[in-house]
Amino acid sequence: MNNLSKKSAANFFAQYRVYYEDTDAGGVMYYANYLKFFERARTDFLRNLEISQHELIEKEKTAFVVRRCELDYLRPARLDDLVEVTVVVEEINAASIVMRQEMQKDKAVLARLKVEIVSVDVESFRPKKITDGFRALLSGA
Amino acid sequence: MNNLSKKSAANFFAQYRVYYEDTDAGGVMYYANYLKFFERARTDFLRNLEISQHELIEKEKTAFVVRRCELDYLRPARLDDLVEVTVVVEEINAASIVMRQEMQKDKAVLARLKVEIVSVDVESFRPKKITDGFRALLSGA
Amino acid sequence: MNNLSKKSAANFFAQYRVYYEDTDAGGVMYYANYLKFFERARTDFLRNLEISQHELIEKEKTAFVVRRCELDYLRPARLDDLVEVTVVVEEINAASIVMRQEMQKDKAVLARLKVEIVSVDVESFRPKKITDGFRALLSGA
Amino acid sequence: MNNLSKKSAANFFAQYRVYYEDTDAGGVMYYANYLKFFERARTDFLRNLEISQHELIEKEKTAFVVRRCELDYLRPARLDDLVEVTVVVEEINAASIVMRQEMQKDKAVLARLKVEIVSVDVESFRPKKITDGFRALLSGA
Repeated sequence: MNNLSKKSAANFFAQYRVYYEDTDAGGVMYYANYLKFFERARTDFLRNLEISQHELIEKEKTAFVVRRCELDYLRPARLDDLVEVTVVVEEINAASIVMRQEMQKDKAVLARLKVEIVSVDVESFRPKKITDGFRALLSGA
Repeated sequence: MNNLSKKSAANFFAQYRVYYEDTDAGGVMYYANYLKFFERARTDFLRNLEISQHELIEKEKTAFVVRRCELDYLRPARLDDLVEVTVVVEEINAASIVMRQEMQKDKAVLARLKVEIVSVDVESFRPKKITDGFRALLSGA
Repeated sequence: MNNLSKKSAANFFAQYRVYYEDTDAGGVMYYANYLKFFERARTDFLRNLEISQHELIEKEKTAFVVRRCELDYLRPARLDDLVEVTVVVEEINAASIVMRQEMQKDKAVLARLKVEIVSVDVESFRPKKITDGFRALLSGA
Repeated sequence: MNNLSKKSAANFFAQYRVYYEDTDAGGVMYYANYLKFFERARTDFLRNLEISQHELIEKEKTAFVVRRCELDYLRPARLDDLVEVTVVVEEINAASIVMRQEMQKDKAVLARLKVEIVSVDVESFRPKKITDGFRALLSGA
């Protein structure tokens, strides 16, 4: 965390249903699929701020790619569960963002994610400074 | 089938393992995932003919998109199964190809697919005539 | 279709968002993933009738398995699309159901599915007669 | 790491192909799907030791569930890549195992995973001591 970083109060949650496609023969959600639910919530968090990742790629030649995940599985999500996924922006650095997310059911935490996302140029895949406008949107959310 | 179509003797198979990711809470392969296994076999069939779909898109601006599937589920594929997936080119039309595929385990047929694939321009998504070179490769395989 | 079959006026639709997880390197929805969206709609259709597939398995030892799909791809679904998926019960036979489904965006049809589903015993996987209660629920919907 | 833990020299790798199903509209492998490749390698590592997770569940009422993942993405895996996935058993504790895994292409590391797996009873989902036989198999590999 450098001096460009900034704590943000941004908080967001959305609900998603667990379908057959998400489960495995163990009878609960397949371990990779938690990352799908976490990504849906981040995308819907941006959509809620009227930020389209699609437009960012087309117009600004900027994409956000995941660099690191720390993922804790506490209780299994099950078929038909309606889970709530939260998004908290924890740090906004020069070219990266750290978010904390939880998947909850009936207030019990099923899984926790700390995810580091890097802003990159869509052609070179090199880190690219986050614009002040984008920073303001994320912080003020 | 018009008079540009041509029966081909092309035949191919490849083996793939069923992992946890492919199953669902029902304990067997999730119904959409059979299409993944069928697609892997078509891609490996083309790779075996030294046709790279990636290069076709880059150099020839041609992509192959699926227009129709008829899929019969006969017996469930299970965790740890090593299944065999076959590819037979049935028709090569002006801008489309019909293939017949089977998923087998120990000679028992688990699923059957008849798939119609269309050659399209990558920009306009409009049908595009299959080249004589490509036709020859597929037919002679 | 035998004389136990019955035309039903059942009609249902639900909306689902297309996320990154659903797309492939071709830039549009991966062809197998349409079946996931169709299955979500069938599950939500049953949920709407207060039928839990989970309970059917636990209490009635009955599961519904897909026997056949006829799937037509008309226009690609794209990232961020909010698509509408419909469910129409077309036939209710002794131990099977035929449904017609469409995926639509802004009233344009993206894909169509005719799916045949069989009622089976969860242990033996043998076809099992559909109960009058279940038949009534599906028909009257 | 308690005094029941034991460093193991176990080392294993297997190769897997990247297909369309693994990619997303960003043109590279979807971030959740790396976990599928890592899991395939762990399953094949156990298979190689003649350990069937299926049999462990049926006969010993023991399942292995993932408790925590630390996942670093270094370079994107791309369509058609043939990647190599490694498995190293780092710790064997009373009821858990820590493994280190890498996904490589042409000796370049694409992603790294540190994964903690817990041995649980299949009914209660409570931690269950790892047997000496299983410990010996994993250590001596």
